[in-house]
Amino acid sequence: MEMSKGGINAPKGFRAAAAAAGLKYEDRDDMVLITSVVPCRAAGVFTRNVVQAAPVVRDRALLAEGLNVRAVLVNSGIANACTGQTGEKNCLRSAQIVEEAMGIPETEIMTASTGVIGMQLPMKKMKEGIGTLAKSLSGDAETATRAAKAIMTTDTHEKECAVSFVLDGRTCHIGGMAKGSGMIHPDMGTMLAFLTTDALVDRALLQEALKDAADETFNMISVDGDTSTNDTVLLLANGTAENTELREKNEAYQVFFEALCEVCRTLAKQLAADGEGATALMEVRVQGAESLADARKLARSVTSSSLTKAALNGHDANWGRILCALGYAGVSFDPAKLSLTIASKAGELVLFENGTPAEYDEKTATGILSEKEVRILADLHAGEESAVAWGCDLSKEYIAINADYRS
Amino acid sequence: MEMSKGGINAPKGFRAAAAAAGLKYEDRDDMVLITSVVPCRAAGVFTRNVVQAAPVVRDRALLAEGLNVRAVLVNSGIANACTGQTGEKNCLRSAQIVEEAMGIPETEIMTASTGVIGMQLPMKKMKEGIGTLAKSLSGDAETATRAAKAIMTTDTHEKECAVSFVLDGRTCHIGGMAKGSGMIHPDMGTMLAFLTTDALVDRALLQEALKDAADETFNMISVDGDTSTNDTVLLLANGTAENTELREKNEAYQVFFEALCEVCRTLAKQLAADGEGATALMEVRVQGAESLADARKLARSVTSSSLTKAALNGHDANWGRILCALGYAGVSFDPAKLSLTIASKAGELVLFENGTPAEYDEKTATGILSEKEVRILADLHAGEESAVAWGCDLSKEYIAINADYRS
Repeated sequence: MEMSKGGINAPKGFRAAAAAAGLKYEDRDDMVLITSVVPCRAAGVFTRNVVQAAPVVRDRALLAEGLNVRAVLVNSGIANACTGQTGEKNCLRSAQIVEEAMGIPETEIMTASTGVIGMQLPMKKMKEGIGTLAKSLSGDAETATRAAKAIMTTDTHEKECAVSFVLDGRTCHIGGMAKGSGMIHPDMGTMLAFLTTDALVDRALLQEALKDAADETFNMISVDGDTSTNDTVLLLANGTAENTELREKNEAYQVFFEALCEVCRTLAKQLAADGEGATALMEVRVQGAESLADARKLARSVTSSSLTKAALNGHDANWGRILCALGYAGVSFDPAKLSLTIASKAGELVLFENGTPAEYDEKTATGILSEKEVRILADLHAGEESAVAWGCDLSKEYIAINADYRS
Repeated sequence: MEMSKGGINAPKGFRAAAAAAGLKYEDRDDMVLITSVVPCRAAGVFTRNVVQAAPVVRDRALLAEGLNVRAVLVNSGIANACTGQTGEKNCLRSAQIVEEAMGIPETEIMTASTGVIGMQLPMKKMKEGIGTLAKSLSGDAETATRAAKAIMTTDTHEKECAVSFVLDGRTCHIGGMAKGSGMIHPDMGTMLAFLTTDALVDRALLQEALKDAADETFNMISVDGDTSTNDTVLLLANGTAENTELREKNEAYQVFFEALCEVCRTLAKQLAADGEGATALMEVRVQGAESLADARKLARSVTSSSLTKAALNGHDANWGRILCALGYAGVSFDPAKLSLTIASKAGELVLFENGTPAEYDEKTATGILSEKEVRILADLHAGEESAVAWGCDLSKEYIAINADYRS
């Protein structure tokens, strides 16, 4: 597997476009269209929030029917959540406008949105925007990057990634872009990710691969613990790489799955590092757990702890808060066997071992915690399972962003 | 039931003392002793954190044996958590020093602590402190208030409360004090509460009453979602009111239970309102739920949502965040039936009804949300159950307090 360029346009046969439709007050791109020259098999994972935005409801239904997908329409101005039947109609109508402009059936067009909750889509502007998008589709790397910028809301920079790998002699690609300054955004935050591949994969296996990859990447990040109503990860596979179709979990599938995880993980880490107000990426690895579920719960409990996040913001080696967050994760373990280590470019330091505080130099600890990427390792010494979660620090800037985002 | 004065000294036969033992760098009281002239039945509820402080482990064991309790020793300088076997020995030794000073068996002396994690108790200072405490016990209201101040850490003011009520012609009292600037405190945060009563209550029934009362009061507050290793609520009942012993859940028990809930609720609200950096108390009532467990989960999800807390800090009627927090609480409900109302001294306003946003004036909403106590009402229109949770806003000050508390 190699890192590649071109984001969502890296796989063969995909084209994208971005446009400024004026859905937001800012003068910037706020709509994106992703298309494939041939029909794609599609997979998706969505928010588990009871309250679901109209496009999430519609995409789920389309996927359930197993229809092919030719295009994805995205807007980053209005979430179209909590908008009732009018919102549902507008969602469908958006797809129909794409159908009229592109000649693709609306049942093969998925939609996704992020932005303000409770507002209806301005359909006149949407129509103009779709007209512009349909005329400006391109398969180059610059357009992919422009699309990655266009889906941003409070993100400070775009997130994109691509890899290439070989399946039975054919070079395949997976590309992706994502937005989200955390699991949730102000005023109906959203994590959106769009992944493309030219590999040929069985539809059910594609869905399983995406779910498994999301569970160990996107589902392991947290900025503020708030799960949005619009979270959506879509994966389109158009098969233009002409590899032998992946139909079972064999060696070739593992190559594909590892490439998919790499793209998802790279995007997930970019999201966590760009969490609202964040100054540092926190990576928490829990090892020596009895089960994978335990390891994941424990790792996420630390990245979600407000006190641990605030301590990281202050470069403070406050291991008591980490221990405390592990303790209330809802997993049973023996604190007397636990060890805690912090690490970064500046070095590595044991803070806690065999149930008692280690002797360490506070200045060294502060140095390690002052880097842009900080790793925390907790070893339970109880089993073989491990998991990694990503988060960020909690800063005054987070409050500033969220105390009066709407006004 | 009537509100009363005197805090933990309101019930007959209790005495308290506070002293400055120098456990903390500040020059202030940091130790408290609560005693009863006659042996008490005791009940307790403790943190569910896997990591438990030495005094929590010891108190649990004493309660399990069903022994009478004569005294509670508290310190607010050092948590005595993650301190290994030395910590356990020091905890027992503290009780033995009280035994030597007071002539009460150490098995009838409970202990509680809050403060810095991972540090050992300075036993010489503890001994001097206990000597001072034993000599200055008093049953007056001023001493109760001084004790309530002495158990504070980052709290900005003391929390105490007392009520009186009548059981078969006998006037009974319940008094209490609590500390905690939220469910957790910096560097081993702690919520501690000590309740006293002169009512005569069967031991098992006393434990049940405390558990039930804690479930609907202390367990319904949240400042930052971090559950501490030291959380402890103790209730001592010395029976000096000479009422007929409460042995079953009859009418008299209900009078006692309601009085107990009133004291717990008053203290719980005081804790939430004094959450670290808080400028407002958030009260969330969920009604029309199918089960009590659902109602509680939903209410706590809103008070625990960082985005809702930040919106309250900005006086922003960002109902999308409230809806979102209800949606990810892990409870199934129909958003189309939901209504949301905010209220305070400044008025009342419907924000969301029948699945769609209500039309309302933003200035009126901001006015309501600018008060010191804000109520949020969510009605699911699905059942008969309801629950109330308390929290506070999330301010820049919270970060300032927690980013570098230790240093």
